[in-house]
Amino acid sequence: MSTAATRATGQDHLWSVTEHLEDILATVRPLDPIQLQILDAQGCVLVEDVMVPVSLPPFDNSSMDGYAVRVADVAGASEEYPAVLTVVGDVAAGQSELLHVGPGQTARIMTGAPLPPGAEAVVPVEWTDGGLGEGPVSGMRARSTSPEGASGQVHVHRPAGARAHVRAKGSDVNAGDRALSAGTVLGPPQIGLLAAIGRGTVRVRPRPRVVVMSTGSELVQPDGELENGQIYDSNSFALCAAARDAGAIAYRVGAVADDAETLRATIEDQLIRADLVVTTGGVSVGAYDVVKEALSSVGDEDEAGGGIEFRKLAMQPGKPQGFGTIGPDHTPLLALPGNPVSSYVSFELFVRPAIRTLAGLDDVHRPTTRATLRTDKSLTSPGGRRQFLRGRYADGEVTPVGGAGSHLIAALAHANALIVVPESVESVESGTEVDVVLLG
Amino acid sequence: MSTAATRATGQDHLWSVTEHLEDILATVRPLDPIQLQILDAQGCVLVEDVMVPVSLPPFDNSSMDGYAVRVADVAGASEEYPAVLTVVGDVAAGQSELLHVGPGQTARIMTGAPLPPGAEAVVPVEWTDGGLGEGPVSGMRARSTSPEGASGQVHVHRPAGARAHVRAKGSDVNAGDRALSAGTVLGPPQIGLLAAIGRGTVRVRPRPRVVVMSTGSELVQPDGELENGQIYDSNSFALCAAARDAGAIAYRVGAVADDAETLRATIEDQLIRADLVVTTGGVSVGAYDVVKEALSSVGDEDEAGGGIEFRKLAMQPGKPQGFGTIGPDHTPLLALPGNPVSSYVSFELFVRPAIRTLAGLDDVHRPTTRATLRTDKSLTSPGGRRQFLRGRYADGEVTPVGGAGSHLIAALAHANALIVVPESVESVESGTEVDVVLLG
Repeated sequence: MSTAATRATGQDHLWSVTEHLEDILATVRPLDPIQLQILDAQGCVLVEDVMVPVSLPPFDNSSMDGYAVRVADVAGASEEYPAVLTVVGDVAAGQSELLHVGPGQTARIMTGAPLPPGAEAVVPVEWTDGGLGEGPVSGMRARSTSPEGASGQVHVHRPAGARAHVRAKGSDVNAGDRALSAGTVLGPPQIGLLAAIGRGTVRVRPRPRVVVMSTGSELVQPDGELENGQIYDSNSFALCAAARDAGAIAYRVGAVADDAETLRATIEDQLIRADLVVTTGGVSVGAYDVVKEALSSVGDEDEAGGGIEFRKLAMQPGKPQGFGTIGPDHTPLLALPGNPVSSYVSFELFVRPAIRTLAGLDDVHRPTTRATLRTDKSLTSPGGRRQFLRGRYADGEVTPVGGAGSHLIAALAHANALIVVPESVESVESGTEVDVVLLG
Repeated sequence: MSTAATRATGQDHLWSVTEHLEDILATVRPLDPIQLQILDAQGCVLVEDVMVPVSLPPFDNSSMDGYAVRVADVAGASEEYPAVLTVVGDVAAGQSELLHVGPGQTARIMTGAPLPPGAEAVVPVEWTDGGLGEGPVSGMRARSTSPEGASGQVHVHRPAGARAHVRAKGSDVNAGDRALSAGTVLGPPQIGLLAAIGRGTVRVRPRPRVVVMSTGSELVQPDGELENGQIYDSNSFALCAAARDAGAIAYRVGAVADDAETLRATIEDQLIRADLVVTTGGVSVGAYDVVKEALSSVGDEDEAGGGIEFRKLAMQPGKPQGFGTIGPDHTPLLALPGNPVSSYVSFELFVRPAIRTLAGLDDVHRPTTRATLRTDKSLTSPGGRRQFLRGRYADGEVTPVGGAGSHLIAALAHANALIVVPESVESVESGTEVDVVLLG
């Protein structure tokens, strides 16, 4: 059986990056929608058309602090010949019982307060004497300290046309309008609109839950003591952060030792909280590649096409990769190589699009652009493999950071782009136009 | 006293957008740094230079699954005339006791495992018969099922030069190198690098904690029943989401009724968890503008320059604004107008830069660009005010969405940019180049 595992022709087929990605995207399906509080739905994709149940604003209201008037009463008013009106009271925002404004009368009105019956327009307080009888004012006195402002007389210095400073009912949205379409990603203004039309919850695809697990008996947690032959676990941290960055809720599982039974049990244990499992390490052709060992024999035994398949990809870094589904819910699992740079590049190319597909986003890929390569020495790349080099991109130019070695995690931390060298190219000179993946 | 409040000359001075923003940025200071777990520090700004305590990789190790060999033993090897070596055992990753490879000997070695003493290079398993005696193999058999692979003989089909497939100690980073500089924003690759060099915690500026509070007796929570004159609270939702989007931990406080004492008590109560307080509503010239009423008299009484100042800004929307500091810790507070679009635009212009300044980020502003205006009718703008119109930007062109009315929250939800019409301009024709703020 292990001979079959190392000698099967499927193992020798080199998959292209594109084939592998297509296989993943053809398998991963958007998560089932759930009803969420609008603030919990931030960043999520709406799955329903949201209709407006009530017109906004729901009533004619004042756009200024001022006085609600009848147009005829202020016609021809000026500072020299003001219209003198009797203040019958205040209309504050949120006030439900309305005054009636008769001829020669006015109501003091606050921004957002409903236009009282009888009134046709609002004159801003700055166009009046505010009831003080001493020329124009810049604002009202607070009701709490000067209750007399809601009565007495006010001098109005300017006329107002019908509907002046009145926001008409329904002038923002009308009941029955479509507020937001299915497929909208909910950002702050969309959440504001939902609240404004009275929607406290909304039907969206939830954030994908991603379990990130690194494997390797050589791995020690940061702040621990390194013994001979050990290194610190960095993949579970980097990929957990990257999964969050892609929009997921990420659960980091500490490094699991190279023991197939332990690994299988740990993965099965985690499935309860996983929409996607990502492992690193143990996928190559060594005798201790336990991810491969544990998962090659864990199929969805009742289902055709289940199980995890291990592949060689025509790419550098990141040649060995595993992908498939696992467990009763056919949870997708991506098994990435263990080298930190290989796993990070693999995450960007394969896991990020999978997470964004689960989230129901249309836009699953990083933006790409063309850039002019600036380098002291030409880049070399193995023929037949798509190479991804770390680079710094700015203003249409890209410069490689670090070398092609897949272990340059320090260089990765200073890169903001991946330089793509296609399969057919073995050398790229400075000044050449190259494809660049922008790492946000 | 209330007459003074409405008639003071400070109230009549029109502040420019730039002056107000400069005043905010001159007052708000980056938060004091704290030590955080690296995954909790995602998105935060590092305040220390992080040095490498241990070289990476910490020891010479194999970059392939294969066999650790002495160069002389495999010189001239070919498939026809293989070098035949005695396998003395396995070197797995994480293994601390090392085998010694003598002349004519080899150790099976896994990717990442330390190069054993005596060996000078690694030949990949694909260049050997894997000990099976049947020509080249594509990988090793799992140790668990085929323990005999760690002994016996192996045929090597190709020579290897000194250090072939060996990653040298320190080839990624050397002890004493600077891994990351103070000021770095910690994204996934930086978190990966920190873990890789053994740093479990790091000193960063924390995410700012922002309390968002809407005010207004007319406000009803979404899913509630609207009575006459009432509207739904949307500001606390939209700005809470926007604060998170700017990198903050946001706490939403439901709408507070227009009562100065309640408001003052609520704000004082919230200060314990606030690095910044944002209120909406109650800042204009009405008789029920309780934010203004409550906060104009709440100074830092022992401190010169404390307290909240209410201003008129030469902008549309968003003319009335309050800013200052409050409480024993001089917590900054921004009091935004209550209209949903005014408050959102004010947030973008003033609160977002304040949050990002608290976080210690260099890059506090939204990106801006120039775009060609595409519109059926020319835009009009009040002279002397900087106007911000909602627009959709794409490919160097921007189209207005909705009108200039400050209550078009539905239009805001379909905008991705603000079109800036400067103070000196009263009309803009289609085809004109305009400044555009890109809303991410």
